[in-house]
Amino acid sequence: MTAGKEISLKVDHTLVQDATGTMAFLQFEAMGISRVKTEKSLIYVDHNTLQTGFENPDDHIFLQDMASNIGVIYSRPGNGICHQVNLERFAEPGKILLGADSHTPTAGGLGMLAIGVGGLDVAVAMGGGDFCLMMPKIINVKLTGALAPWASAKDIVLEVLRRLSVKGGLKTILEYTGDGIKHLTVPERATITNMGAETGATASLFPSDEITLEFLKAQGREDVWRPLAADKNAVYDQELEINLCKLEPLAACPHSPDNVKPVKELEGMKINQVVIGSCTNSSYLDLMKVAEILKGKKVHPDVSLVLACGSRQVFQMLADNGSLAEIIKSGARVLECACGPCIGMGQSPKSAGISLRTINRNFKGRSGTKDAQVYLVSPETAAASAVSGVMTDPRSLGEPFVVPNPEKFSIDDSMFIFPAYGDKEIRRGPNIKALPLKCELDRDLQGEVLLKVGDNITTDHIMPAGAKILPLRSNIPAMAEYVFEPVDPDFARRAKEKRGGIVLGGDNYGQGSSREHAALAPMYLGVTAVIAKSIARIHYDNLINFGIVPLIFMDPATYDTIGQGDRLEICGMKESVERGDEELTARNLTSGQKFSVKLLLSDRQRRVLSAGGTLNFMKAENS
Amino acid sequence: MTAGKEISLKVDHTLVQDATGTMAFLQFEAMGISRVKTEKSLIYVDHNTLQTGFENPDDHIFLQDMASNIGVIYSRPGNGICHQVNLERFAEPGKILLGADSHTPTAGGLGMLAIGVGGLDVAVAMGGGDFCLMMPKIINVKLTGALAPWASAKDIVLEVLRRLSVKGGLKTILEYTGDGIKHLTVPERATITNMGAETGATASLFPSDEITLEFLKAQGREDVWRPLAADKNAVYDQELEINLCKLEPLAACPHSPDNVKPVKELEGMKINQVVIGSCTNSSYLDLMKVAEILKGKKVHPDVSLVLACGSRQVFQMLADNGSLAEIIKSGARVLECACGPCIGMGQSPKSAGISLRTINRNFKGRSGTKDAQVYLVSPETAAASAVSGVMTDPRSLGEPFVVPNPEKFSIDDSMFIFPAYGDKEIRRGPNIKALPLKCELDRDLQGEVLLKVGDNITTDHIMPAGAKILPLRSNIPAMAEYVFEPVDPDFARRAKEKRGGIVLGGDNYGQGSSREHAALAPMYLGVTAVIAKSIARIHYDNLINFGIVPLIFMDPATYDTIGQGDRLEICGMKESVERGDEELTARNLTSGQKFSVKLLLSDRQRRVLSAGGTLNFMKAENS
Repeated sequence: MTAGKEISLKVDHTLVQDATGTMAFLQFEAMGISRVKTEKSLIYVDHNTLQTGFENPDDHIFLQDMASNIGVIYSRPGNGICHQVNLERFAEPGKILLGADSHTPTAGGLGMLAIGVGGLDVAVAMGGGDFCLMMPKIINVKLTGALAPWASAKDIVLEVLRRLSVKGGLKTILEYTGDGIKHLTVPERATITNMGAETGATASLFPSDEITLEFLKAQGREDVWRPLAADKNAVYDQELEINLCKLEPLAACPHSPDNVKPVKELEGMKINQVVIGSCTNSSYLDLMKVAEILKGKKVHPDVSLVLACGSRQVFQMLADNGSLAEIIKSGARVLECACGPCIGMGQSPKSAGISLRTINRNFKGRSGTKDAQVYLVSPETAAASAVSGVMTDPRSLGEPFVVPNPEKFSIDDSMFIFPAYGDKEIRRGPNIKALPLKCELDRDLQGEVLLKVGDNITTDHIMPAGAKILPLRSNIPAMAEYVFEPVDPDFARRAKEKRGGIVLGGDNYGQGSSREHAALAPMYLGVTAVIAKSIARIHYDNLINFGIVPLIFMDPATYDTIGQGDRLEICGMKESVERGDEELTARNLTSGQKFSVKLLLSDRQRRVLSAGGTLNFMKAENS
Repeated sequence: MTAGKEISLKVDHTLVQDATGTMAFLQFEAMGISRVKTEKSLIYVDHNTLQTGFENPDDHIFLQDMASNIGVIYSRPGNGICHQVNLERFAEPGKILLGADSHTPTAGGLGMLAIGVGGLDVAVAMGGGDFCLMMPKIINVKLTGALAPWASAKDIVLEVLRRLSVKGGLKTILEYTGDGIKHLTVPERATITNMGAETGATASLFPSDEITLEFLKAQGREDVWRPLAADKNAVYDQELEINLCKLEPLAACPHSPDNVKPVKELEGMKINQVVIGSCTNSSYLDLMKVAEILKGKKVHPDVSLVLACGSRQVFQMLADNGSLAEIIKSGARVLECACGPCIGMGQSPKSAGISLRTINRNFKGRSGTKDAQVYLVSPETAAASAVSGVMTDPRSLGEPFVVPNPEKFSIDDSMFIFPAYGDKEIRRGPNIKALPLKCELDRDLQGEVLLKVGDNITTDHIMPAGAKILPLRSNIPAMAEYVFEPVDPDFARRAKEKRGGIVLGGDNYGQGSSREHAALAPMYLGVTAVIAKSIARIHYDNLINFGIVPLIFMDPATYDTIGQGDRLEICGMKESVERGDEELTARNLTSGQKFSVKLLLSDRQRRVLSAGGTLNFMKAENS
């Protein structure tokens, strides 16, 4: 296991959600395998639950039918957000989880190696295939001391982001150690591993210890516990030490999760909205703290406070113990247990509105309001500010309170539908379109630069989500109309007119959400290559999966010499891929200049790319 | 007070909701009046609460700012559905309520004369103007006996609809009497008055009696009670007697509220969705019955049960007494207290899905899914069916239970913002566009028949709502693109190309929702007249309000002689309106045929129409 060399992992569990799941299931179906071969595979319906048309209820039924036949556990809409529910009911220390959602690493809070990938990788794993990746570097994040009153797990991960930035975790795993972890419950650890995704890390990992056991016991699942910890003499590629005693409430300012400032510095800023929920901060512990702060108080008249529990378990426990009544009395707007506002599915802020959210991403426009200003904060900061109407350091609330860990969570698995392994007819709504496929790689790469973008372009820029577009996830031709819409609304038209071409990116191209649609839809539009200064890991793999060549400038300065509209060429592309050339010579036909690009591929990736993507590759392998 | 003659009413209370309110407030503003002159005026935010973009939160803030300045009480989003909240906290026996929502008559359950109208009529009333209408006929609905076990208030009003049809109440008030009413609580009466709107009735009215007093006491509002009942010797235009003992659970089948059948006849039909909520059936009593039925049971795996309380009061009481926990345990998806699915704001059924709903309308497509099959049922039938997965007569549940009326409702008015009567600057989002105005009436009416439609065209056909269009309510140019979209998606383009024209309707044209946008947006597109066999009351008035001439065929058979695309002409239109001609001669320039049309207008309406609509008229009056 040498960092940078390809390794392959045997996958124990998989998860998909409804926005990635329809495509993953269609891909699984296209592989011609009848039943999943993992120990446990789940589909959670949590993304497209607004149902502003027939598309998503149709998707849910398609997923339910497929799951039943192929052996996947179906978590019904209303049952909660995949990562929260998974942590409660299915995650197991020491096992490997592959999930078609970028926040899959959440399960690392329970000592599970959990990695977010595109849906196609999950489909392959469901079919029994290994998951291959470049062995990441390991960063040791050493937590010492205990959190000061009113500082929160969210503040720990915001501090990690402040130090590492949104690309500091690229090609690494963050392993948490130190005496500080003894003070963190599993849901708190999960908040940290969840937002590790924002550093670009492949996974984040906590040990499995007595606290893990206690959590599993309370969930009636102590049988899956086993103690796991880093070797005493472990050597790391990088170390990061955070003294928890010194942490104060933090906020990630617009428009990046690493734009972190102390809440203190922002105090007094008028706010319009507060959103509490998402897979980052909607555990029982989080919501109980919120209820405690809201108790006997009222949401400020100028603030809309919306709140969604992370799971039906949390919702029910709050209903049972009276906390939900307190939350309702405060004037909070209680939404269904689902991803909701975090992915722009409703509750967009007002124009240029300031929104404090306990979620994990504050990319520009992701809230559904282009000029909204979203700040990422802890539940404590969120609740305190909802009452005061301004950004408020929760330390101003005085004496902190303690929310005891429940000795027993309320356990009720009745909203999971377990597979019947039958052969029932799959109901497919009219919006569920066949998977588009690509031909094998062309001999030469030639095309026009359709678009030149800057640094840190997210998959939300490439393939936006939100209430208008996310419901189309099972219909690539319809979705493709919106590719790069936030950056250049004319892109899809131009790509079709030019019959495809090349996209030019800056640093950290394709960061953020794991969505494979950010590769699949451009592929449908004829994009054949991305050339960038660097490409985020999941997106890099997704590009290969869909037959788009991911190229890195040897000299980043070359980026400045190429303009949108230039025609580029790499002769003998297919041969280079197959041979494993790591440095290729490209030509700018418009300027006449030559330049070098890097193409780092494993053996398997070479074969995948040459075949025109994983599905072609798998079909050829199986035939 | 002779039926058919114009009367004018002094309005005590008004209400608007957010989908009608922005326009009503803009109209109020255009009149140049600084403060409302009613005893009480309310704006409830309950329609556009999904917030899938900046438009609606911007609207909410505009409404909040305006309300504070002009003296309107603002009910914050999350506080509940206007009619339910109004019944709980503001409705008063014997007073007159004018509401910009077609279900305003709900308050008739408490002995209030409550009438649904377009927003402009409400704006005029807010400004102190009387409300003028043709004196309706009075239908006496005499209820005898008591409901059999498992029959419900919803079944009573479905029986009324079965007998009267969706136009049987046109130009009438339904007055409820008989010993049967003694067995009906105020919320049950309100279910009946609510859906009286579906018969086309101007209002529905229950007496104010001991039961009313009991309800008001439990709401801490006994001071507004006064006894009211029909005169012993009252003479009615029509009588209808319903023996409650003989009623069984009923369902309104697709696609009309009067297409009523016994649930028994439909038993066993597989269902996909159940929706419990809306202003018709989401009272404490309704939801407690639902909780009782769901207790200890689970929602069927093939059914999605969504549920929303009608008000924060209901929500909080269910949270306090443990019923909400029971509902959550059953697997129900709990939505925010708002109109939601009833108006197509989310929770659309699957393609061709069968949805059982406790709401008031099952017009084709209103659910957001064009081919969905919506059945209107009682909460009891809905809950029983959600568990069994098939249409189920609740009588099969066995022994009925009794939900006691609360002696004291949980009272908390903190989610109302009371006016400051200040002069604060009104924040207007970019989607809030200026009001379009019309010129005064042209001397002659001449135009092409832009569209010919059949009977029972609803305002949902004319100006659809739903998740895509409803959020645009404060932007007429944007909304106008969707006029008649469900009937003819090309209509807007054609109307603009032809620079306006005439719409030809059948019977009961413009039934359903009170939305004035169904007149305002066609006016914006240049529609100058509607000629129909008959026109629903609210829509008739709305047409006049926006300067569109509402004409009725003298001989309904003429309808068949005119085709879409024919050019029609009425010479001297303006003069006829001003003179009060009730019969006009029109000419079909295409066929050469002459025909007669009726134009029934009060004096005031003549002046309004001649001026080009109410706003022009009011401006002229005030200048």
